[in-house]
Amino acid sequence: MADASTIEKVGRRCSIARSLEVIGEKWSILIVREAFWGRTRFSEFRDALGVSSDILTDRLATLVEGGVLERVPYRESGSRERYSYHLTEAGRELAPVMAALNSWGEANRPSEYGRSAEYRDAVTGEAVELAFHTADGRLVDQSGVTFVRGPAVIAR
Amino acid sequence: MADASTIEKVGRRCSIARSLEVIGEKWSILIVREAFWGRTRFSEFRDALGVSSDILTDRLATLVEGGVLERVPYRESGSRERYSYHLTEAGRELAPVMAALNSWGEANRPSEYGRSAEYRDAVTGEAVELAFHTADGRLVDQSGVTFVRGPAVIAR
Repeated sequence: MADASTIEKVGRRCSIARSLEVIGEKWSILIVREAFWGRTRFSEFRDALGVSSDILTDRLATLVEGGVLERVPYRESGSRERYSYHLTEAGRELAPVMAALNSWGEANRPSEYGRSAEYRDAVTGEAVELAFHTADGRLVDQSGVTFVRGPAVIAR
Repeated sequence: MADASTIEKVGRRCSIARSLEVIGEKWSILIVREAFWGRTRFSEFRDALGVSSDILTDRLATLVEGGVLERVPYRESGSRERYSYHLTEAGRELAPVMAALNSWGEANRPSEYGRSAEYRDAVTGEAVELAFHTADGRLVDQSGVTFVRGPAVIAR
């Protein structure tokens, strides 16, 4: 708990830490990945990831609370009401986080299997890539990008 | 431990999971953030983050093993030899992960403090932004990007 409160303290000023409050627990990002791939049901997430029901319940609750997933009730004939989990708009806006993790893993932790995900414009279906660019549209290689403290942290 | 082995199994095919093996533990991404901001010493990381020495030792070891940080020995007069920690090229290539987490937190978990980090071309100093683009350079808004399983996962 000391951990959590310190991360919260850092989080007030740093938006990386605030993002991690929602998606920073083990499994959370893999659950979001499965949601992007179209999985919606508790049992689908559990079977795809091999995660325990307790942990999955906890992570889904945090993702719903953090506005990444939306719970929708459904009922199959003869069964009790259950919930399915769907990406919200904020959830879909995690695409750059996923793409950045994908690219880094492919470049720095390669496997023999090839690419695990392909990113597309949802409307046109065109392949898209994530990259840094300047205001006038020049692409800048990620290894040539640095970052400095912004106003929120300089003031600390 | 059951957790770790399952993530490893998933990781063989998914580069998101392989990235998380290196930076997916609590605090790891915040340590990388501090490294981007120029901190290099154990005591600096500990004091900036308020993380316990045990956890910091563990996370630094994983980041060094995963090729994100490089350990460099140094000795101040009268002290024993210590190590400082420096981003490697693979570490600097995490800039898009950091920028994506920054942007998501700013958009979806806003605070009153303003931006916590600013991204720049390390050579020219120009401000840069992270975005998806098509092969012909058209920018695509992140909320309009979806992703599908790639060859590594379809084959599973």
